[in-house]
Amino acid sequence: MRYLSFSHGGEVSFGCVVGNAVTDLKRRSRLPDLASYIALNASSLGKETDLTADYALADIRYLPVIPNPSKVLCVATNYWEAGNEGGERPDYPLTFSRFAASQTGHGEALLKSDLSEKFDYEGELAVIIGKAGRRIGEADALSYVAGYSCFNDGSMRDWQKHSTQFMPGKNFFRTGGFGPWMVSADEISNPTGLSLRTRVNGELRQSNDTSRLIFSIPWLISYFSQFTLLEPGDVIVTGTPNGFGSTRTPPVFLADGDTVEVEITGIGTLSNTVTTDSGP
Amino acid sequence: MRYLSFSHGGEVSFGCVVGNAVTDLKRRSRLPDLASYIALNASSLGKETDLTADYALADIRYLPVIPNPSKVLCVATNYWEAGNEGGERPDYPLTFSRFAASQTGHGEALLKSDLSEKFDYEGELAVIIGKAGRRIGEADALSYVAGYSCFNDGSMRDWQKHSTQFMPGKNFFRTGGFGPWMVSADEISNPTGLSLRTRVNGELRQSNDTSRLIFSIPWLISYFSQFTLLEPGDVIVTGTPNGFGSTRTPPVFLADGDTVEVEITGIGTLSNTVTTDSGP
Repeated sequence: MRYLSFSHGGEVSFGCVVGNAVTDLKRRSRLPDLASYIALNASSLGKETDLTADYALADIRYLPVIPNPSKVLCVATNYWEAGNEGGERPDYPLTFSRFAASQTGHGEALLKSDLSEKFDYEGELAVIIGKAGRRIGEADALSYVAGYSCFNDGSMRDWQKHSTQFMPGKNFFRTGGFGPWMVSADEISNPTGLSLRTRVNGELRQSNDTSRLIFSIPWLISYFSQFTLLEPGDVIVTGTPNGFGSTRTPPVFLADGDTVEVEITGIGTLSNTVTTDSGP
Repeated sequence: MRYLSFSHGGEVSFGCVVGNAVTDLKRRSRLPDLASYIALNASSLGKETDLTADYALADIRYLPVIPNPSKVLCVATNYWEAGNEGGERPDYPLTFSRFAASQTGHGEALLKSDLSEKFDYEGELAVIIGKAGRRIGEADALSYVAGYSCFNDGSMRDWQKHSTQFMPGKNFFRTGGFGPWMVSADEISNPTGLSLRTRVNGELRQSNDTSRLIFSIPWLISYFSQFTLLEPGDVIVTGTPNGFGSTRTPPVFLADGDTVEVEITGIGTLSNTVTTDSGP
């Protein structure tokens, strides 16, 4: 089942997709948001019955799948590429976090601040946590997953280098596309081998598959849960393949009007168009 | 006025301190939390009248001042020390973030995970944002402040060094003391010259004052607001003086039973005792 957060007629809600329509699960459940719904229904996602067609899918605006996650835990790079499969695996991945305010929904503007000319894309698989846990073992880790989505970890490369810490460059307002929806884990029993492709204005820029993650999804869930409490609606953004703009020769960055698509098999395609942000 | 989040008889609430008592502002305002109260009352904080003594201060348990901030924006080090005043100021500070789940309230256990033997303290001044803003100028920045508090930016030094990124070591569950309360900005019109002292088991370990911040509070508010949307209840943790354990000779780390106090003039003293965390 595809679950999403959206607005319809200015009203913020969440629901699931049925054909070309959306069922409003907020009205049905009287819960405030998708994270709360996931928390209460983690074990029965995908099993809802009597789903009504409340709105046409074409009539909604997409919000970030989880608009208000307690945590967005991110991993840098994290893919074996052709030629480096035999490379040395570091002991730990590079990890950082994003604020909810840095997210934007499918079809919404991806904001390129006029304070940076180095706005870059990173297509990634996002994992949404379904139940709370600490010190989760790798063997149990996938049972904590509610579902999967696409993420574009939009980054201002110059601000990312203000210090050793990535935080500023990874947290510009509405630079992280997240959507269009979450496909519940009952439809993706094994998240390896999912093909991930990023296109800019239709041109293929990144292509790899999740069987080539250096640190696997169970490993990442286990690692993060060693130090923090994972909670329903928390998001793990699992890393990006080669091919993002700053590593190209010559480097190429996003400009106003560019469209970035992140496509993952079994999930769908997240699409956002870059719009210059000149401030409030 | 001193504002705080607390529980009383197991009920989570927020309020303000009147003598040795607490007024329950949740009951009075019917708002869900202190961040919401700050958002609606930013310009009138400290001016409440007819405050009732609902509970004895001795009968509450302190929660982190803001239990659910959208953002906890942190700065590493950031103090001029005796002997380095003439040093070169970097272009930008080292910045990172903490999750709400890493916080703990005054008087509550500061959890030392048994997965690390390098648990360190960092006494800091916390700034709580009162109104939303983007691209705030330094000259206006203090008008966005709701108030000030004490913070202990507890850090697992080994996990902080898993990669170049500090995130894991800065986000262990309940390692960041935050409290006891927020003193509203009407009582601290100028947050420079506040004396900051950290003691471990009564021994003075850190001592400096906020006139010696390398990046000032207005500078930090302006900087963070260039990339993110600052929102009511957001927390800026402004950095720590020399004297934390990992920089001592020999290094000294926190152990079960140690008590850490962070005292700031005009605010109060945050006190937490270290307790070993062996997991869920």
